[in-house]
Amino acid sequence: MAGGAVLNGVDVGRLVATVEAIQANPELARFKFRATSEWVDGGRSRTRIQGFYGAGQEDASRERPFVLEGDEPPVLLGTNTAPNAVEAVLHALASCLAVGFVYNAAARGIKVESLEFTLEGDLDLRGFLGLSDDVRPGYEGIRLSYRVRANAPREDIVALCDYVQRTSPVLDILRNPVKVSVALAD
Amino acid sequence: MAGGAVLNGVDVGRLVATVEAIQANPELARFKFRATSEWVDGGRSRTRIQGFYGAGQEDASRERPFVLEGDEPPVLLGTNTAPNAVEAVLHALASCLAVGFVYNAAARGIKVESLEFTLEGDLDLRGFLGLSDDVRPGYEGIRLSYRVRANAPREDIVALCDYVQRTSPVLDILRNPVKVSVALAD
Repeated sequence: MAGGAVLNGVDVGRLVATVEAIQANPELARFKFRATSEWVDGGRSRTRIQGFYGAGQEDASRERPFVLEGDEPPVLLGTNTAPNAVEAVLHALASCLAVGFVYNAAARGIKVESLEFTLEGDLDLRGFLGLSDDVRPGYEGIRLSYRVRANAPREDIVALCDYVQRTSPVLDILRNPVKVSVALAD
Repeated sequence: MAGGAVLNGVDVGRLVATVEAIQANPELARFKFRATSEWVDGGRSRTRIQGFYGAGQEDASRERPFVLEGDEPPVLLGTNTAPNAVEAVLHALASCLAVGFVYNAAARGIKVESLEFTLEGDLDLRGFLGLSDDVRPGYEGIRLSYRVRANAPREDIVALCDYVQRTSPVLDILRNPVKVSVALAD
């Protein structure tokens, strides 16, 4: 774990240094992530993501915003220009677990050869349509399976998976309630 | 609300027909959304979204998969090629509320001129890093504000906002627990 060693594309020395810096100064752990979004037409919207606060300062590393599009398929009255919002949630979950798995594998000295996720979520549209008070609007359940190839015994992979599940931000966001305050501007 | 009338880019006749079809046959409301995702390198991953099940059949409307990328900024040991997972969650939330607002506005005969969202979420990295059992890995809170221009009195907009909040799939997914089952393939 000497500084400069890179495993799984992760600079392990920087990872260790980051953890140590946050242990010494927990304020560095406070992040604020942001987005702005505008409706385009019909089911289409466009989100821009650029700045955030973290590690004690405003981040200025992104020269341009990332642009994410949302839309609905024709059966949901959209025009299929982009995935819809609940599909984007599945992407967020996979992306989060990938980072968690690969970073922690690097910290443990495990070389990851490949990592793939398959996700499926069940949603009953009657919630969104307001047709039943007994049906929640969101996913009733999400199933995720993943396949790993790595240079470690199965038991080490299982232990790593368990750890990643306990520390994944998006998995936590899905499994546990998040306070979301919504304000309508004047 | 005659068939063929389009308001806010939404075919109101089709919207009403969809609601009526689901009322007559709730099985049509069952959707299964899917994604596959593969780790690329470091914090990077790539998600593909194409098929889904809904309205009683496998959807075949998308000729190619949508591709969503995830990465981390340099301060989080990534290479800034894409937004990270918790930023993607903010996009999903805005995209969901936009669809809900605009579709329901169309159903109520409200013409939306513009609709914009600003989102910010607080995250303490100590959860992800496993440095504290008292800190959750995910967002401690999300603040969302939105600005609407539409041809309706303020009280009608407020009522619409309230309804949209009660029926938004992603807002429900965030505010309330979702069962996520995770399986590691052999």
